[in-house]
Amino acid sequence: MEYISGGVCAAKGFRAAGLHAGVKAESNSEKKDVAMILSDVECTAAAMYTTNRVKAAPIYVTMAHLEDDAAWGVIANSGNANACAPNSHEHAEAMCAAAAKATGRSPRDFIVASTGVIGQELNVQAVIDAAPALAQALSTEGSGDAAAAIMTTDTKKKEVAVQVELGGKVVTLGGIAKGSGMIHPNMGTMLCFLTSDCAISPDMLNTMLHEVVPRTFNRVTVDGDTSTNDTCAILCNGLAENELIEWKDNNYAAFKAALTEVLTYLSRAMAGDGEGASRLITCKVHGSRSEESAERLSKAIVGSSLVKAAMFGADANWGRVLCAMGYSKAPFRPEHVDVKFASCAGEILVCEHGSQVLFDENKAKEILSQEEVIIDVNVNEGAHYATCWGCDLTYDYVKINGDYRT
Amino acid sequence: MEYISGGVCAAKGFRAAGLHAGVKAESNSEKKDVAMILSDVECTAAAMYTTNRVKAAPIYVTMAHLEDDAAWGVIANSGNANACAPNSHEHAEAMCAAAAKATGRSPRDFIVASTGVIGQELNVQAVIDAAPALAQALSTEGSGDAAAAIMTTDTKKKEVAVQVELGGKVVTLGGIAKGSGMIHPNMGTMLCFLTSDCAISPDMLNTMLHEVVPRTFNRVTVDGDTSTNDTCAILCNGLAENELIEWKDNNYAAFKAALTEVLTYLSRAMAGDGEGASRLITCKVHGSRSEESAERLSKAIVGSSLVKAAMFGADANWGRVLCAMGYSKAPFRPEHVDVKFASCAGEILVCEHGSQVLFDENKAKEILSQEEVIIDVNVNEGAHYATCWGCDLTYDYVKINGDYRT
Repeated sequence: MEYISGGVCAAKGFRAAGLHAGVKAESNSEKKDVAMILSDVECTAAAMYTTNRVKAAPIYVTMAHLEDDAAWGVIANSGNANACAPNSHEHAEAMCAAAAKATGRSPRDFIVASTGVIGQELNVQAVIDAAPALAQALSTEGSGDAAAAIMTTDTKKKEVAVQVELGGKVVTLGGIAKGSGMIHPNMGTMLCFLTSDCAISPDMLNTMLHEVVPRTFNRVTVDGDTSTNDTCAILCNGLAENELIEWKDNNYAAFKAALTEVLTYLSRAMAGDGEGASRLITCKVHGSRSEESAERLSKAIVGSSLVKAAMFGADANWGRVLCAMGYSKAPFRPEHVDVKFASCAGEILVCEHGSQVLFDENKAKEILSQEEVIIDVNVNEGAHYATCWGCDLTYDYVKINGDYRT
Repeated sequence: MEYISGGVCAAKGFRAAGLHAGVKAESNSEKKDVAMILSDVECTAAAMYTTNRVKAAPIYVTMAHLEDDAAWGVIANSGNANACAPNSHEHAEAMCAAAAKATGRSPRDFIVASTGVIGQELNVQAVIDAAPALAQALSTEGSGDAAAAIMTTDTKKKEVAVQVELGGKVVTLGGIAKGSGMIHPNMGTMLCFLTSDCAISPDMLNTMLHEVVPRTFNRVTVDGDTSTNDTCAILCNGLAENELIEWKDNNYAAFKAALTEVLTYLSRAMAGDGEGASRLITCKVHGSRSEESAERLSKAIVGSSLVKAAMFGADANWGRVLCAMGYSKAPFRPEHVDVKFASCAGEILVCEHGSQVLFDENKAKEILSQEEVIIDVNVNEGAHYATCWGCDLTYDYVKINGDYRT
């Protein structure tokens, strides 16, 4: 597997674009807020959505448009979630209609997604007016612009692409994502659009997506809030000309490895860019009796406000790690637990068999002051493990979310 | 029912004291850190504890001491949780032994509790050395000192007492509590000691405590972290000479109303004094199909980091309220939901039938800028309701928890 550039346009036959349409306020006129992705040919498509009972209109529209497991492209906006707001369903349909008109396709060929403030009516006319220019701007260099156009409080664009060989054919998979706050299993406010030239059946694509998302995006938590708009969609146009993946053979495994790599990369990028975050926190729980237990423990640790605040202060407060494990509802014996903190500055054991270990506080501080910190927990009871990602809780998180809407 | 002064010493036959023993660091020598409460006669006692799988040693020791449903008093310290630390069980027993020796009682007559940092060995010698002075200081004026001695990051002492008449006899119930961070259903880091001169059977006392705590303390959330040390204990010495409460009669109901009043008062005090909090948030969910659903919805709202940050910013971001309801796992129809914000400055409808309502932003800002804010949600589907309490998420929460341990 090899990382390449090009993001969502890396695979054969995909173009993308991003523009400022005016959905975001006037003062943000520099900021792109509409994105389009289009394939040259019809794609097999699959998607996963938020588990929130309150689902934004674009999700229902996309669900309907993907009933035939086929799509040509994506139309998306940032600045307004088009959720719990007047005419949201009509506006989501209107976005697809505008994209279709500008590209000579049908509205049902489009996946639609929105992200931003909830509860205010979307300025859909801005999107409609921008659609022709957006179609005009579509290019194989457009991934970065599309990635920028779906950002809200994100500070960094999130794009990636990899290549794998399937039976002698080079297959490319790329993706862009946004996600910063309101990120929590399952599928925090995140949008992710994936494109590939792989030939794969709808059934296998759907199965694969449901296998990989729970171990990647659903293991990211920023603030415990699950959004109304989360969407992860994948489009495969088959232009790589590999043998169609129709069952769980070696090619399925190889493409699944590529999808896992891409979604892990984007998960880490989202966690590290969590609202106000100063550090990416990776929590590895191993030695567990089951993967489910390991995941539950790991999620509780990276989700704990107290652990997150301690990480912000570079404070080796492992007692909070044990405390979070204790309320995770996963079975484990506190007296078996070892906790280490690690980073590029080294590794330090801070708790052994559930109890205090004398350690060098200065060394711990140095380890915890790095940009990426690993909380390594061994529950010493089995062979299963899971890794979850999160970030620290900082003054800036409070600042960003104290006046996001106004 | 009448509020009176005296806290945990308001009921007949109870004395209390609080001192600085040296469990807290030298620089805090002004701060009291050991508390004792003692009854003149044996009490019927009951307690509830943290649901965290990692339970501090004092909890196991108290459980054992309450096997006979009887106790004489409480010995407690702040500054160290005596959890996940060397010799924690021995230290908890030693605290009871020291209290017993200083008061001429047996170690098993004492309830023991600790609060503070997890994972560091308790300086138990400091508590042992302080026990005689503590016993000496016991007085009917000592409730405030005891309340102060169990505080950690609390900024205010929490004490209350009420009187009710049961069959012509005046019965008094008082309590002190601490709780600031790591507060979440069920039983966040909180200690609560209740004293009464009521005559009640062990069975009825235990039943009543289990009926009232779920609707009071377990409806408080500050940061979603459930601590290792939470304890709510009640001592009833019978000196009011009311007819023994042995079944669920009118006297049971009247005393239960008093207990509900006291625990509601202390719950609100804890939520309003949440770490770094600038506002008490009360969330009332009504019109629900069941009390369980209403409670789940209400807890999700007051527990949402995004709602909490919006409240800090006095931002009428009702979309986040709906979003939190959506991931609560309680059934409701978003299109039925009405949301109002209220405070002493008035009331404003911001969402009707799950959708935007035009409202005066300045008025909303004024309402949300008060010290106590009510989020009032009507799901318009039934007759059940629940109220939960929380606080806003502020810069100070991050500051307090970024360097609590060091």
